[in-house]
Amino acid sequence: MTGRTITFYAEAVEAKHFVERLANNQLHRVFLKEFETEKGERIVNLKLAYRVWGKPNAERDNILLIFHALTGDANCAGYTGPDGRVAGWWEALFGRHAAIDLAQWCVICANHPGSCYGSSGPTDREVGATRPIGRDFPEFSPRDLACAHKQLLDLLEIPSVHAVLGGSLGGMAALEWAVLFPGAAKRAVVLAAPAASSAQAIAFNHIQAKCFEIDPAFKNGDYYGGPRPMLALSLARQIATITYRSPGEFHSRFGRDTAFSPQPDAQAYLIQRYLDYQGEKLVRRFDPNSYLKLLATLDRHDLARGRGSLAEVLKAIRAQMCLISIDSDILYTGEEVESLYRAMAEAGVAAQYKQIASLHGHDGFLIESDQLNPLVGKFLET
Amino acid sequence: MTGRTITFYAEAVEAKHFVERLANNQLHRVFLKEFETEKGERIVNLKLAYRVWGKPNAERDNILLIFHALTGDANCAGYTGPDGRVAGWWEALFGRHAAIDLAQWCVICANHPGSCYGSSGPTDREVGATRPIGRDFPEFSPRDLACAHKQLLDLLEIPSVHAVLGGSLGGMAALEWAVLFPGAAKRAVVLAAPAASSAQAIAFNHIQAKCFEIDPAFKNGDYYGGPRPMLALSLARQIATITYRSPGEFHSRFGRDTAFSPQPDAQAYLIQRYLDYQGEKLVRRFDPNSYLKLLATLDRHDLARGRGSLAEVLKAIRAQMCLISIDSDILYTGEEVESLYRAMAEAGVAAQYKQIASLHGHDGFLIESDQLNPLVGKFLET
Repeated sequence: MTGRTITFYAEAVEAKHFVERLANNQLHRVFLKEFETEKGERIVNLKLAYRVWGKPNAERDNILLIFHALTGDANCAGYTGPDGRVAGWWEALFGRHAAIDLAQWCVICANHPGSCYGSSGPTDREVGATRPIGRDFPEFSPRDLACAHKQLLDLLEIPSVHAVLGGSLGGMAALEWAVLFPGAAKRAVVLAAPAASSAQAIAFNHIQAKCFEIDPAFKNGDYYGGPRPMLALSLARQIATITYRSPGEFHSRFGRDTAFSPQPDAQAYLIQRYLDYQGEKLVRRFDPNSYLKLLATLDRHDLARGRGSLAEVLKAIRAQMCLISIDSDILYTGEEVESLYRAMAEAGVAAQYKQIASLHGHDGFLIESDQLNPLVGKFLET
Repeated sequence: MTGRTITFYAEAVEAKHFVERLANNQLHRVFLKEFETEKGERIVNLKLAYRVWGKPNAERDNILLIFHALTGDANCAGYTGPDGRVAGWWEALFGRHAAIDLAQWCVICANHPGSCYGSSGPTDREVGATRPIGRDFPEFSPRDLACAHKQLLDLLEIPSVHAVLGGSLGGMAALEWAVLFPGAAKRAVVLAAPAASSAQAIAFNHIQAKCFEIDPAFKNGDYYGGPRPMLALSLARQIATITYRSPGEFHSRFGRDTAFSPQPDAQAYLIQRYLDYQGEKLVRRFDPNSYLKLLATLDRHDLARGRGSLAEVLKAIRAQMCLISIDSDILYTGEEVESLYRAMAEAGVAAQYKQIASLHGHDGFLIESDQLNPLVGKFLET
């Protein structure tokens, strides 16, 4: 597919964006005239959906760019949904006494390309096509995600932000930002993200991707207009859920407890019900092809790819780095994050590292706001 | 299904078995006239396939009973297969300078009911039925496995063995043997098995079982005579493989290395190829319904179930216990095995505990023969 050009429809949007004028809590969009991925695929009219909270100050030095994780969206703060009751995925980090006070900071968060929350992705149609592009949507690496965000900020005439922040896939994009654009962030907060996706992480993604091959509804990704491969997506999410949480959490929340199941003579362990529920929840809100594309994005994460040694790569970083791991994280382990921190310190990067204690595993970066608020808040201020 | 009676066909076998006469390296079989599972299902003519190596001495006090793991069989020692080149799953523990010298010991190993290597299982037909029993084969708990083995040894007129040994599911059966039949083993060697299957272990089994629900070839277990649910079985095995090995092993063996895949423009990570290969290997040799039945057997493992506290249960044990864990085991962790050991010590059981160092995770109990041979050999002798 290398060398392909994919053209999406563009809608009429203001040619010039003024971040000062952008309404809060509203999904805005821009179309990048041309974007080339690391693999050499060209996309014409790449749409980026993003939100802005707070106001930039006169110097425009109070801007924070937040990258979301695998199935996240641009709603990192505030409340959305039909009845305005769905909290943003990092809402607990926002507030007067939290890490990010919107009276002080202006926050920008865009949906990743490949996802299904407003930016270009598999559900979009190419110009002239009658069906969504599906699996043929180009593969974005975390490096590509950082580049797409950079073009968005260029359009907003923001050459540099105070900080980039992100956890998991978002942390990978933040790392890439720090490497790619040394002058474009004073600080970077990277949670639960390693220097490269490990064999173990690739293994867990592999078995998730394989679920779709079994599901006849997947039809090699061309399921639009027919039944969606819901069983596969649900199972993939259940597999992922095990990696997002921890054995200790499952033990303390569920243990070997059972509930009577609707089937006669069958009891279900509560942990089974919990996994089923997590699977069903994602099915209601996510596109299967988007899920597969973003799994591949995770797999591609490798700061050193094509750049020489990791030590060489890290020397480019100018931002102050704050790396945070979670002690019970089995997906991107504390060991991995700490080893990246040590490599940064050896490369002369101004880096700090903190491991937070949590029973919640990888998802601790979304859950442990009591620990994250003072930590992230202080790092942004100093 | 409680209260059901299932009748299988019995073949004419010698009414009385003399272990002295049983040929080595040959699959023997007995039919238990009646066996009742913990859940109250009665099986008439439960077939048990087993092998015997070595000879019992005059006192019959040199007999070892070995329980196999999930997809294992009665071939714990020796070589089988059409060209006699397939090593038994624990062959590395046998030999003059290994843990088990067949000049000294007589070893018995039976295939677990529910499996597909000669004992009664889902591929068998009930009397009068035209199709295999499939999913309706009764669920055996590790407790039931121990009871079935006890009936086999009763038929062989072996009231007590020198030791029971097993790893993983086999270790669970060995634990149940020690609890259920305090006079029937002097020693027990339990590798990589906990007091009860954890929520995490149940979670990993749940996502494996779910693979079959997606595969249309599964047909709710009634696939005999048609295509087998190979994709589901392969994926389930791939999931299991992640739990059988360790992140460290995957990192050192595969890292992020890739190989060109047969598909144009697609590279496959070696870890993906490895998992695919492990899946394909099992598909060639295992029955999907048997796999599901034995997953449920693992889930049911709980020494304390219906017996009061674990401390009370362990007080029944008279055998000397040797518990062994593997430091990189993420399925049945060192922490779990050590906690069982401590509970035994507190309950006054003569127990010893050893953690072996291995990169191979749970499968270390099959692989680390250099460490296991002196450890197990010495324990059997003292």
